[in-house]
Amino acid sequence: MTITERPKSATKSFSKLKAFEKLNTLAKHPLDLTKEGNLTPERLKKFSADACGYKLLYGTERIDENTLLALKELAEEAHAIDQMEAMQNGEIVNFIEGFASENRPALHTALRDQFEKPNTSKAAKEAADTAKVELDKLKAFMDVLDKRDLTDLIVIGIGGSELGPKAHYEALLPYIKKGRKVYFVGNIDPDALNDVLTKVDLKKSLGLIISKTGTTLETLINEELLTEHFKKIGLKPQEHLITVTAKGSPLDDKKKYLEVFNLWDWVGGRYSTTSMVGGVLLAFAYGFDVFMELLKGANSMDKVALNRDINKNLPLVGALIGIWNRNFLHYPLVAIIPYAHALGRFPSHIQQLDMESNGKHIDKQGHFIDFETGPFIFGEPGTNAQHSFYQLLHQGTNICPLEMISYKLPQRNNDKSIDNTSSQEKLLSNLFAQSIALAMGQKSENPNKDFQGNRPNLILLGKQLTAFSLGALLAYYEHKVAFQGFIWHINSFDQEGVQLGKVLATKIIQRFASKTTGKVGTPYPLGDAYLNILDEL
Amino acid sequence: MTITERPKSATKSFSKLKAFEKLNTLAKHPLDLTKEGNLTPERLKKFSADACGYKLLYGTERIDENTLLALKELAEEAHAIDQMEAMQNGEIVNFIEGFASENRPALHTALRDQFEKPNTSKAAKEAADTAKVELDKLKAFMDVLDKRDLTDLIVIGIGGSELGPKAHYEALLPYIKKGRKVYFVGNIDPDALNDVLTKVDLKKSLGLIISKTGTTLETLINEELLTEHFKKIGLKPQEHLITVTAKGSPLDDKKKYLEVFNLWDWVGGRYSTTSMVGGVLLAFAYGFDVFMELLKGANSMDKVALNRDINKNLPLVGALIGIWNRNFLHYPLVAIIPYAHALGRFPSHIQQLDMESNGKHIDKQGHFIDFETGPFIFGEPGTNAQHSFYQLLHQGTNICPLEMISYKLPQRNNDKSIDNTSSQEKLLSNLFAQSIALAMGQKSENPNKDFQGNRPNLILLGKQLTAFSLGALLAYYEHKVAFQGFIWHINSFDQEGVQLGKVLATKIIQRFASKTTGKVGTPYPLGDAYLNILDEL
Repeated sequence: MTITERPKSATKSFSKLKAFEKLNTLAKHPLDLTKEGNLTPERLKKFSADACGYKLLYGTERIDENTLLALKELAEEAHAIDQMEAMQNGEIVNFIEGFASENRPALHTALRDQFEKPNTSKAAKEAADTAKVELDKLKAFMDVLDKRDLTDLIVIGIGGSELGPKAHYEALLPYIKKGRKVYFVGNIDPDALNDVLTKVDLKKSLGLIISKTGTTLETLINEELLTEHFKKIGLKPQEHLITVTAKGSPLDDKKKYLEVFNLWDWVGGRYSTTSMVGGVLLAFAYGFDVFMELLKGANSMDKVALNRDINKNLPLVGALIGIWNRNFLHYPLVAIIPYAHALGRFPSHIQQLDMESNGKHIDKQGHFIDFETGPFIFGEPGTNAQHSFYQLLHQGTNICPLEMISYKLPQRNNDKSIDNTSSQEKLLSNLFAQSIALAMGQKSENPNKDFQGNRPNLILLGKQLTAFSLGALLAYYEHKVAFQGFIWHINSFDQEGVQLGKVLATKIIQRFASKTTGKVGTPYPLGDAYLNILDEL
Repeated sequence: MTITERPKSATKSFSKLKAFEKLNTLAKHPLDLTKEGNLTPERLKKFSADACGYKLLYGTERIDENTLLALKELAEEAHAIDQMEAMQNGEIVNFIEGFASENRPALHTALRDQFEKPNTSKAAKEAADTAKVELDKLKAFMDVLDKRDLTDLIVIGIGGSELGPKAHYEALLPYIKKGRKVYFVGNIDPDALNDVLTKVDLKKSLGLIISKTGTTLETLINEELLTEHFKKIGLKPQEHLITVTAKGSPLDDKKKYLEVFNLWDWVGGRYSTTSMVGGVLLAFAYGFDVFMELLKGANSMDKVALNRDINKNLPLVGALIGIWNRNFLHYPLVAIIPYAHALGRFPSHIQQLDMESNGKHIDKQGHFIDFETGPFIFGEPGTNAQHSFYQLLHQGTNICPLEMISYKLPQRNNDKSIDNTSSQEKLLSNLFAQSIALAMGQKSENPNKDFQGNRPNLILLGKQLTAFSLGALLAYYEHKVAFQGFIWHINSFDQEGVQLGKVLATKIIQRFASKTTGKVGTPYPLGDAYLNILDEL
């Protein structure tokens, strides 16, 4: 495919932007949500944005009109939308200037640009066409599988090959094809695979091996173990194994697998759910059409991310609110709380997406930076989280902004009224109540019943969780994270920070091996110290 | 039972202690782990403590001999062990002086004081005897259940009635009794129960309703829904429902349930896994004896927490390291990373235990405090987390201390050597490598390969995850959290911070109800604003 130039639209450090100073000044007196007359019904209605069937409600953030204006100036000064356009057009956005780096585009949006005549660059169009070939292959392959008596799919993959797929698989369970089930094995811990093996019938199972590079330790070892289990009961592995891997990787071998699906170096692991990484297992579980609906939803939010009217650009609004909380109010973390049971694993996906993308300490020119980048992300579903850690969110000594996600209707059309309200209405009541309680607080003469309030939070509210709205939600977060990276002028698409641990792990694995082989090997005193401690147990 | 006096051993504010000043001074120049000669094999061996089959390895914390000494002085000055003794003796530790408060003991340790002649107070002995009655009842009840053809147990409970039980259930799966399975429903979201109903055979199922107060909204609604499902297929709910609730609660009604198990106001929700809250479902899944082993492990760590030799008091060492990181190095959060697949849900339990216990802003006299209390807690299993958010842990702009938990042996005795090392050895290699990489960092001319290091981390290492070692691990964290609360002089046993949200939720539920009933009801303009926005979807 044609690789175009690097976007030159922003090279100025975030902390040198004019809007940065303006926002710093505003942050000295952020809006006090606990002051009478500040948090009003009108405000809740006004501070909101809509797109793709979602409303982003942010009246409970510490943001006023002036803050909003300065945040929009920030977005313009940093050429946020130009950079999003460059990304979606296939320009090289994954680079560190002057140093060895991956030096390539991040074109996950092309994977789902399959629905209208694309209005993008030649590079993006080529990428979309390449993705289309795999989609067609997937459709045909699913027809083949439908003729076999298959029940279980064992997905072997880790990181981006597990978290997004698992979150999306669990989010769509009501659409499951009868008798089918998907299991995930990520961890090298032998208990992980052995646990799954107690649950499946291997004769009716397929293994799906996902590794972009085809070199991921955990995945290769678990693949080898699974292969032996197939052989042990007389099955031919090549009739039971599928792989998703980059063109030309060690796994890209049609002789070893029932089918090989490809992805490309312009799809990052944590941005790969809408590639075959998510596609094969979601189509197996829910059918090809459900996967296409997911792509359609994502594609629809991709277009929203290009909207020059910032008010309608939902991911950009979300990104700017996040930057306000992170860089100006200095909150180090964000809680993602889905008030939607089906999104139980979604926070873990966003945790990777955000922390791996924006947990960086250098800018795109390789300078160490002097401001805060990506926050820590964690989350559990509400209302469960209310009965777990909300005590600290309300009354702890540090503040954590919340992003709550919910839907008007339950996913399964099965709800019942008790005492004149349905369970879904009780769920939504809790969501709204928490939003207000966190923001407004409560004064009391009993210090234990005193709530300081001013806990920023927002709600992303949709009508119902479907494949389409899930796709839009995924793309919302992908673009929110990318916008923050663009504004911070960091590279959100590499992950050099995971390398050192891998190198040292290999050294220690060799120390373990030398105990078995009897060969002395390369000494590694710190590793040996831990191995000696282990021997004492 | 006899209620004794409040412990008078510590009333001085944490920030007024002499050791506080000393530690503040030391924190200006914490040990630099990246400096050559500081992180040595000898150090890894020396900075460790053992108890109950666990080793706590903390050579990769920014702690030197002087810091350790000052931390021990802190523990003594705050009478940490005296307060632990008071707690285990049944003195009133759950109170706020001068204000309405729960005003009662926290005697979860008595639940498992069933193995030797207890060397505790009269109050604790009485509590242990009361708990014994329920244990005997449980044993007999399990024999009754063994005569019925039962496969599934649906646990309805939320917060402490779900998180601890679920984490412990998932941690012991290799011990499962053939054909049995446990499902959990916490959320009021109707999709939560409906999802479980697609998986179980109600005729062979029991429902276990857990609510200490018997008034938890989510639990009562889900109980009512489950009851109707039993009735709909002609089953008698009282033959399929069990409850665990406090003596005298609305659920404490033998006519409605197959069996009623009790707990008492001296067992807090998040400290209740070793009461019948965890007992009934763990005994159902694993047998009564496995549950007793869990208690034995917890009891063994309870005794360790009373050890006056601080070096051997594992939970106290853990608490002091946490306080150093929290109050002196000012890290706002802690990652709990089990390098043990089976402990996948354990961080969620610790998240509640720690954040709900110590996310407080007043001391035991009701004064607003001037230092940091409980950190944010999050976590996912390693090695998965390495492929998710470790990028930020290594190279982000904020630092997060890690607590890693692992075992020498896998839980299922089924591991295989590939390239001369087993999967478990590869897992442990990753654990040790991360510990070293986070602490030491790496200098590089390529700024993207530069790791600043000095990321504090510790390892809790055991031989194998069994019911006994799991019990000890649970009690380790319970006491670590309690010790921190004692030293901070806050009440770790109440949760007033969850009340405001409940009150406002009830108001909004009434607004929804008034739409159905047509009655005007009490206006609540902020709630109505959200309801109006919902109508637009």
